[in-house]
Parts: sequence; structure tokens; C-alpha cells
Amino acid sequence: MRSDVFTTEPLAVPGGTETVLRGGRHLFPLLPAALHGVRRIGVIGWGPQGRAQARNLRDSLAGTEVRVAVGLRPGSASADDARAHGFTEADGTLGDWLAVAAESDLVILLIADAALAAHHEELFAVLKPGATIGLSHGFLLGHLRATGRDFPAGHPVIAVCPKGMGDSVRRLYEQGATVNGAGINASIAVHADPDGHAGDRALAWSVALGSPYTFATTLESEYRSDVVGERGILLGAVHGLVEALYRQFLLDGADPVTAYERSCEAVTGPIAHTISQAGLRAVRDAVADTELFDRAYAATYGPAREILAEIYDEVADGTELRSVVLADARLATRPMSRIGGSPMWAHGDAVRARRGTHEAVIDPVTGGMFVATMVAQVDEFAERGHAWSEIVNESIIEAVDSLLPYMHARDVAYMVDNCSRTARLGTRRWGPRFQAAYEQIALPALAAPADPELVHAFLDNPVHEALAAAAALRPSVDIAV
Amino acid sequence: MRSDVFTTEPLAVPGGTETVLRGGRHLFPLLPAALHGVRRIGVIGWGPQGRAQARNLRDSLAGTEVRVAVGLRPGSASADDARAHGFTEADGTLGDWLAVAAESDLVILLIADAALAAHHEELFAVLKPGATIGLSHGFLLGHLRATGRDFPAGHPVIAVCPKGMGDSVRRLYEQGATVNGAGINASIAVHADPDGHAGDRALAWSVALGSPYTFATTLESEYRSDVVGERGILLGAVHGLVEALYRQFLLDGADPVTAYERSCEAVTGPIAHTISQAGLRAVRDAVADTELFDRAYAATYGPAREILAEIYDEVADGTELRSVVLADARLATRPMSRIGGSPMWAHGDAVRARRGTHEAVIDPVTGGMFVATMVAQVDEFAERGHAWSEIVNESIIEAVDSLLPYMHARDVAYMVDNCSRTARLGTRRWGPRFQAAYEQIALPALAAPADPELVHAFLDNPVHEALAAAAALRPSVDIAV
Repeated sequence: MRSDVFTTEPLAVPGGTETVLRGGRHLFPLLPAALHGVRRIGVIGWGPQGRAQARNLRDSLAGTEVRVAVGLRPGSASADDARAHGFTEADGTLGDWLAVAAESDLVILLIADAALAAHHEELFAVLKPGATIGLSHGFLLGHLRATGRDFPAGHPVIAVCPKGMGDSVRRLYEQGATVNGAGINASIAVHADPDGHAGDRALAWSVALGSPYTFATTLESEYRSDVVGERGILLGAVHGLVEALYRQFLLDGADPVTAYERSCEAVTGPIAHTISQAGLRAVRDAVADTELFDRAYAATYGPAREILAEIYDEVADGTELRSVVLADARLATRPMSRIGGSPMWAHGDAVRARRGTHEAVIDPVTGGMFVATMVAQVDEFAERGHAWSEIVNESIIEAVDSLLPYMHARDVAYMVDNCSRTARLGTRRWGPRFQAAYEQIALPALAAPADPELVHAFLDNPVHEALAAAAALRPSVDIAV
Repeated sequence: MRSDVFTTEPLAVPGGTETVLRGGRHLFPLLPAALHGVRRIGVIGWGPQGRAQARNLRDSLAGTEVRVAVGLRPGSASADDARAHGFTEADGTLGDWLAVAAESDLVILLIADAALAAHHEELFAVLKPGATIGLSHGFLLGHLRATGRDFPAGHPVIAVCPKGMGDSVRRLYEQGATVNGAGINASIAVHADPDGHAGDRALAWSVALGSPYTFATTLESEYRSDVVGERGILLGAVHGLVEALYRQFLLDGADPVTAYERSCEAVTGPIAHTISQAGLRAVRDAVADTELFDRAYAATYGPAREILAEIYDEVADGTELRSVVLADARLATRPMSRIGGSPMWAHGDAVRARRGTHEAVIDPVTGGMFVATMVAQVDEFAERGHAWSEIVNESIIEAVDSLLPYMHARDVAYMVDNCSRTARLGTRRWGPRFQAAYEQIALPALAAPADPELVHAFLDNPVHEALAAAAALRPSVDIAV
């Protein structure tokens, strides 16, 4: 990562250093220069990411000559919401997607994966010569490779990938007005750089979104860690874990509200908060029964790692992407199954109503199993060669600072349905795999003594150093959701 | 299906007729003629299918000039068992796999899928000119297509695919000594027929295995229905169902032994037996609470069908096959996870010890959910254009006459580990998907009135006619396991 405009800084990580850019509102005056000739940004799509990014970009670039417009498909159901947020046909900031793409110097493609797979060629065909193509994750690269195609020549291709849900990208940006630097971290990737300014444009886009810090990756690494992560600890594994634990606590004699509190509520509340504030080892320090935490950790790490390795293989191979495309074809004629109909979710309201009436405690089994799964994902990513910035953001920070707080405030169905369709499908595919492994392998092994090697490997894991370094780069802000 | 040697007969099925060959020991004298020049049969591999097929073929061809030899990889751990069953180096019926393949006129490839993927070219390279290549399912076709290759030219390529586990293929063949025609049905496929006799050779092989009746399919249809079926009602779905129901009955207050009896024991015992003897509607007739059966059926059919459609898409697309190949690479360095460690299996011995002390009853919820899943698979196969013979064998007869009786006699881990590696991996991949759908969608919907359209569609389903026609072709024999 290098820049003609911004001052990057080194980040000490296990085994070396990485280069990052710390963000903040004081950098907004540099944005027009860093955009190197981009005077019109077209955000194509108004899903959770489009809705957040278009607003953040517009607000960060207010007072400059750079305009942000939103492009929607003809007849899009999102047009009214875009207008309600100030993007209108009247002032030229809302229009047909092809028209907006044709007029923009930076075209940010934030439509759903399946729509991108179906329509990218139409969009590419209308681009101005030399217009920059912007993505927020690497799906399209995977799709183009799988179909033997490529991005059009002569266009810079960049990605800025916020490590959080669209709603969080907006919410923390708003909090950044009072705490400079509050926001969601992002990775950038420069995939094609014909004019030599692609990297600065990506950094400018990231700073304008409010990223506390920006780190570098490749489109391929980003795609892999993003898609694996959401199938793992970000969504799929956490869903499988709370389903397994809720039932286990019921079978152990707990009433439904207590079972919910010990499982789902513990994960989304005190566990997420503890990790966000003080790191992974702090969860172990916080439980009343460390030995039970260790047994739960040791019983879970192996089976969780095995599924994560399977997910990684399938994502890297393209198999998972093919499954998503096949699912999209099926879903044209039938609705996606509900994820919130499981009996446990009926008790969410009662649990939320009890908040504040008693101390939130971390169940040692829940804590040990959750942390073991998180560390298994970290270790799998490290073994596959991902940068530490990517590992801690995609496995830990996105979970504890974006997704879990959302799940804590709303409910799981709301959270899942505010993620991408690819993520929603992935949760349905892999959540049950984690649930079965927890129920059939980890929980039955809970009575056995903890393997001391696994516990030591956790306590000495390099992730703690990487996470602390990442934490030092950003203000500590509890997201308001 | 046509033959110069055997007399085939029509089978009335919904919407038309199919052609089948009824088997039996009285046909064994016709085998040498039907084999059209095959004087030496090489069975490559000694897994469950190799072990059963080599013995059945040898016994059926005893007294003829056709010899059956077994070929094993150098250092194979199976050599002692093959010798114990009378295949020895001394009489030339046991040898190195390449040597046996090189000497045989019909080379039956029964090594594991991954080994077949890795070594088929070595085996093809040593074949005699015009030697017939025999398969027992279509995996290799899928693999060759996925890698842009084909079977070697000039060789007949046939498949005989028994619709049951290897152990059942042997066990029912032995029972055929007293009840002529007892055995496991098989499908045949003629994929390449350069000399015009491939079809007769396949029929001879099937008759020699003891198939009560043989029906025709293609390698591709066989592959799809076989791989989907084992991920569906044959293994994956039944595993997911009993895990979901066992826990549900516990949560409803049952003790573990009763919960096991109402879930797993009901499926593998009275439900399987009822379907085998009297068909699918007889399960509904047998339960004490028909209305509850209907509600369970209606709540389950939709979510089960949805997963079956997903499995079918992924198998047809080749995605599932890629996943199996990826899993095999991972399993080179780590063991396959255990499927029998789940708490419910600990109660199997107590349940089996109680057999005969009280009447075996069918829980209406278990019956409704199992039958709904079976019918969902039947309907999915019918929609995808499979022949009715294939549908009823791959969705019903293989389940109730081979796999479930095995599961009833032994336990689930034993059953699963006597299936192919592809099946074992599929059970681990898809069983949890069914479990989650049963727990999170079907069981919570149990209180709602049954959709009368779904119940009528069950009662009037053409599968009942097809199953009755298939049953008329074979003696009624309870498999001894």
C-alpha cells in the first residue's frame, strides 16, 4: 500500500509489519486530490451496503465538486427510500443504473451477487473510457474466473470492503461526527491499475466511508476470507452454536428464558463486549469456572476447525459459489426458508425485557465454545496465508463490533436478512453443520479433561498481539444500534 | 432393454410401461452364453461391494468355465479376508489389481471413488483389447466429464448397480438358496456397446448377483439418483430425522430409552417393516392418531423437498462431486469425524434389549415426518424425469429392505461405515441440513392443521402403484442381518 496523498503507517503484526492508513474526518479535505480526476461517483444498488456507502460518500464529499449519484434498476422498489435519503432525479443524484454508470468516473457496483453475475456485462458496456470499476467484495472476480471471462481492459478495478454490515457502516460513521475515527474498518484491493492512481482512489473511498483504518489485501484473499468468515464465526457458526446450546441447556433442565440467556444472549452481549473491549483471553478470565471453559474450548476447537477447513476448500475451489448460483435459480420460484422460526427465538423478547435486572454473566461452556470457534477460524486463515489485518478484522472485529451487537439489539432473523444474499444462503448451508458438530462431537466430549496443548496454543496464540495492535489504531466506540 | 438370451417382461408403471428382467437361480445356466465370450471376470477391490459381488459371481458361475478373480492393490489390508473367502494366489483367483485387470475379459471396478479417480488411467492402460469395463455406479462418468476425459474407445462400458449395501447383496443372495429370487434389485446401464453384446453381459452380471429384478437406466441417471438418494432418505435425511426427533422427545419429557424408541427404533423397525410389507399408506393406517400423522406429514414435506431439490442441483451440477474430492484430500491428514458419538446412540443397546417385551408402535410424528421425506424424494426424482423403477428402488426399496434393517440390527455407525466413502461424506454434509429443517421449520409447524392438498397428493401419489408393481416382481423376504 502506497499513496501520493495520504500518510500510511506501519502496523506491527506477528512475524513482521503491514502497512495501514488510519482514517478520520480530518482527512476529508484530501479526498478530491486522492480521487485523481473522479468528479462523479455512481453507486449502483441500494441494498444495505449501497444505502450506507452512498450516504457516507456524499456526506464526506459535501462541499467539494465531487458528486455522488445512485443508480437503480428500472422499477426498483428502493427508489422511494433513496429519495427519502436525499437522492433525487430532480438534482441528478438518482437515475437509471445504466445511465448513472455511463456518467460516472468511479462506478461502485453494490447490487446483489446474483444480479452482478447476470448484469455486469451490460454495466461494463456503458462505462466511460478509463472509468474506475469499484467493488465491495471479490464475488465478481470469482464469477468471471469461473466463466472464463475478465474485467474489461483499460479500466482501473478496485475494491473497498467494509468489515461490517451496511447498517453498521452508516451507524458508526454517524458516531464518527463526535468521536473522530469511529467507523468500520475496510480492506482495499487494487486489481487493475492502468493509470497508476487506483490505489489512492481506493484509499479515498475507504476514508470517505469512515474507516478507522484501511489495510491492503487482494480481491482473491478478500473474497475468500469474506465468504468463509460469514459462513464461519460471523454468521453460520454463531447460529449453529446458539441453536445447539439452547437445546442443550433445556435438556439440562433450564427454563427457555434462562437457556436463551446462557446461549444466545451471552454470545451477543457479554462475550462480544468483552472481546471488543479486552480481547479473547479476557473471556476466559471473566468466567467463574476456568476449567470448564478450557474443557469446552478443547472439545470444540477440533470439530470447528474441521468444518472451517471444509468451507475454505469449497470457497477457494469455487464450489460454494456454484452452490449460490444454483440456489438463486431455485429461489426464483420459491421463497428462502425462514431462519427465525426456531422455537428459541420466541423467547428473545422476554430475555431482552429482563436486561438490566440482573448481572450479565458469561456461561463457561458458551464462552469456551464460541472462543474456540473464533480461534479455529483465525488459525485456519493464518495457515492459508492471510494477512493479520484481514484475519483479525474478518474473524473478530467484524463479529464483535458489527454483527453481534446487531443481533443483540434486534434478533437473528433481522440480522441475517440485513446481510447479503450470499451470506444468508451460507448461513443456511453451514449453520446446521456447526450445530451438528457441536451437538454430536463437542458437547459429548465436555466431560473429558481439556487437552493442555490446545489450551496453551490458545493462550500463546499470536492473534492476541495482532488484535491488540489493531485495537490501538481506532477509537473504542460501542456501536449504537 | 433387450436380450438375445433372457426373456424380459413389461412392468406397468404410472404413465406407461418399463421393461425389466426377473431374476432367479433357474437362470444361472444361461450365464455363460449371456456373457458372450467373457471367460474371466476380474473384480477389482474388496470393499463391501467387491466382497459381496466377487462371492456371488463365483458361486453363481460355479461349474461353468467362467472364472472369477479378485484384484487388490499391493499391500492391501483386505488380502487376508479375500483369502479367508476362498480367493487365493495359489489357484489364480487373487492377485495384483493391474495383473488381474490385464487378464480379465470383464473388469469390474469396485475400488473406492477417490481411488478410482486417482488410478483409473493405470487400470485402463492394461486392459485387453475389447475387454468390458464394469462399474457399480456412475461416479467415474461424472469424474471423467469433470476433468474433460472419457472412457477408452473400443471397450464396452456397462454398469450393474445393486440397490443395497454390499453386505445385503451377499446376505439376501444366500437367502435366495431357499427362496428363489431373493436378493437386491439392480439397475443396469449400457454406456458403450462396440460389439453389440454389452447389454446381455450386464444382465448376466445382474442375474449372477442374485437381483430379483433388473431394470434399465443410464449411467448419468443412476449416478444422480444414487448420490442424491444416499444424501436423502437412504442415509442423510434419516440420520437428521432421528437426531431431531430424539431431542424433541427428550424436550417433551420422554426418558432417553423411550425417546430412542419413538424416533430411531420406530424408523428402522416398524416403519421400515410396514413399508416393505404393505407400502407407504400403510404407515398412516398403522398409527393411532391419523390426524397427527397428517400434520407431521404436511409440516415436513415442504422443507424436506427444498433440501432434496438443493441436493439434486448440486449433484447434477458436479458441485457435490467436487466437494467429495476436496474432502478426500483433507482426509489424507485427518480422520473422518465420528457419527456415532452423539448421545442418543448410547441408548441403542438398552432399546434393543427391550425388543419383544412390548409391542412396537409407530409414533405418528415420526411416521409422518419419515414418510413425507420419502415422498418428497420420490416427487423430486419424478419431476427430474427418472424412471419409476429407479425411483421406487432408490427411494423406498433400498431403504426399507437393505439399509434400515441393517441400522436396526447393528447401529448407525456400523451402517454408515459399511457404505461407500462418498455416502459417508454425504451423510455428514446433508444430515445436519435435514436435522435443522426438521427442528427449525417442521416441528414448530406441527401444531398447525395439515394442508389438505398435501395429504391428498400423498394419498393419490402415483408412487403407490409403482411400488406395488415392483413388489409383485420379487419374493417377500425379510433380510436376515
